[in-house]
Amino acid sequence: MKLIRFGAVGEEKPGVQLANGTKIDVSAFGQDYDEDFFGNDGIEKLAKWLETNQASCPEVDDSVRLGVPLTRPSKIVCVGLNYAQHAAEAGMEIPKEPVLFFKSTTALVGPNDDVIIPKNSEKSDWEVELAIVIGKKASYVEEADAFDHIAGYVLHNDVSERAFQIEKSGQWCKGKGCDTFAPVGPFIATTDEIEDPNNLNLWLKLNGEVMQNSTTSDFIFNVQHVVSHISLFMTLLPGDIISTGTPFGVGLGLNPPMYLKEGDVMELGIEGLGVSKQNVKAYKK
Amino acid sequence: MKLIRFGAVGEEKPGVQLANGTKIDVSAFGQDYDEDFFGNDGIEKLAKWLETNQASCPEVDDSVRLGVPLTRPSKIVCVGLNYAQHAAEAGMEIPKEPVLFFKSTTALVGPNDDVIIPKNSEKSDWEVELAIVIGKKASYVEEADAFDHIAGYVLHNDVSERAFQIEKSGQWCKGKGCDTFAPVGPFIATTDEIEDPNNLNLWLKLNGEVMQNSTTSDFIFNVQHVVSHISLFMTLLPGDIISTGTPFGVGLGLNPPMYLKEGDVMELGIEGLGVSKQNVKAYKK
Repeated sequence: MKLIRFGAVGEEKPGVQLANGTKIDVSAFGQDYDEDFFGNDGIEKLAKWLETNQASCPEVDDSVRLGVPLTRPSKIVCVGLNYAQHAAEAGMEIPKEPVLFFKSTTALVGPNDDVIIPKNSEKSDWEVELAIVIGKKASYVEEADAFDHIAGYVLHNDVSERAFQIEKSGQWCKGKGCDTFAPVGPFIATTDEIEDPNNLNLWLKLNGEVMQNSTTSDFIFNVQHVVSHISLFMTLLPGDIISTGTPFGVGLGLNPPMYLKEGDVMELGIEGLGVSKQNVKAYKK
Repeated sequence: MKLIRFGAVGEEKPGVQLANGTKIDVSAFGQDYDEDFFGNDGIEKLAKWLETNQASCPEVDDSVRLGVPLTRPSKIVCVGLNYAQHAAEAGMEIPKEPVLFFKSTTALVGPNDDVIIPKNSEKSDWEVELAIVIGKKASYVEEADAFDHIAGYVLHNDVSERAFQIEKSGQWCKGKGCDTFAPVGPFIATTDEIEDPNNLNLWLKLNGEVMQNSTTSDFIFNVQHVVSHISLFMTLLPGDIISTGTPFGVGLGLNPPMYLKEGDVMELGIEGLGVSKQNVKAYKK
């Protein structure tokens, strides 16, 4: 199943994208895609409900805005440097274990919303990433059991301000949590739709030019290892997002480096997870 | 006003601690202490409501557990190395601007709940901190306006696993976001109760022995600077928690270093913000 949320900012309703691409409004099911939904078999219940109610669900026009395909999670945990080639371009050693950082949940925006370059920013950058949506509370989970804790997968652009991230005092969070820096969607594909999350093509184009083009088979740490590893340090809740890192080809790694500017257009996609597109705007009060 | 939440884990109700120390149940007011409460004049509305309803509010017995005095915030942003003496003991230079990191909201526990040492941890440590609760959305806020965005203040023990924080690959979040690592409370004191947040004594005792004893007048970056600075990098939402850093006297800085072990008792307090007490337990499945 492909879970979407649609409507104006702050007024999103839950929907489903059918196999033929048609989008339907499932708000009559009575539950948004939140912690309770993912943690209490909401996906199974919704599938069951659709068996008898799908025909009466209103269609959602393609002109309607897509929102983040889940409500605000308790956290977004990201993995840094999880593709060998990207670690090299960032001038970093291959890490011995996953490098983790948090992204502020206030950074979340819909898949096709504008990305706003913050005030005083000169080094905003793109990062196509495969994100995991947690389906079951995860604490000290073994790798072998990790897939039991996953509800689905979603496309994420882990937009990053490199000067804020690297040249400021302290931790990466200054350059990772800026508003609009987490376009997520178009949809969450439930696990049954993705045969092997560790073998998916992913790409990002800037103004039509391919900048990133790789496959998650180049992961240093695969999906099950990442979930297991994070669960050693904190409990993951249903609906939490884990972003698994970006491959080679970000602006920071180019020679000379190249960063986002007003008017740029980012398009990105992952096999089986659809495509998103963000226009880049400068911050205006 | 002093805002409390009380009751079993996951079933907390909102309450108020009166000037004479009596605690009352204000759940009849009809709103928990959440983003909407802080962002829509909930404090003023509750004060007004109490003028006519206080007498009919049930008393809360002192034996009842206190919970985190607000619902799950969108984020906990922390400042590292914000006292000159603590920066020195950590062997770090005085930062040129606030060092920021996130703490997972799944780390939140009530003020007197147990702190659980994670599996494989040998270096869990204490940090008494003054935390700010945001009252009004804050984005690009000037220092002069920062106080308008604050709802109140609360006591926080920023428990930290030093090996996870410093010796692992990557960012501090591995050692800061562990479950139970954010005891918060006993109460949120609204801003009218705290004359000057930049001049409060704070202290922490381990097994009765004073380990930290300082004053927020030793801040490198004061409350208004911290709020303004964070708002350059992300929007702060009502109910978000900002923790302002810890003074000299953590276990990492002792010679030799000393860390928490099962059976330890931490007691901590800040002038005007009450006292909290946590028993330290080892992780058991």
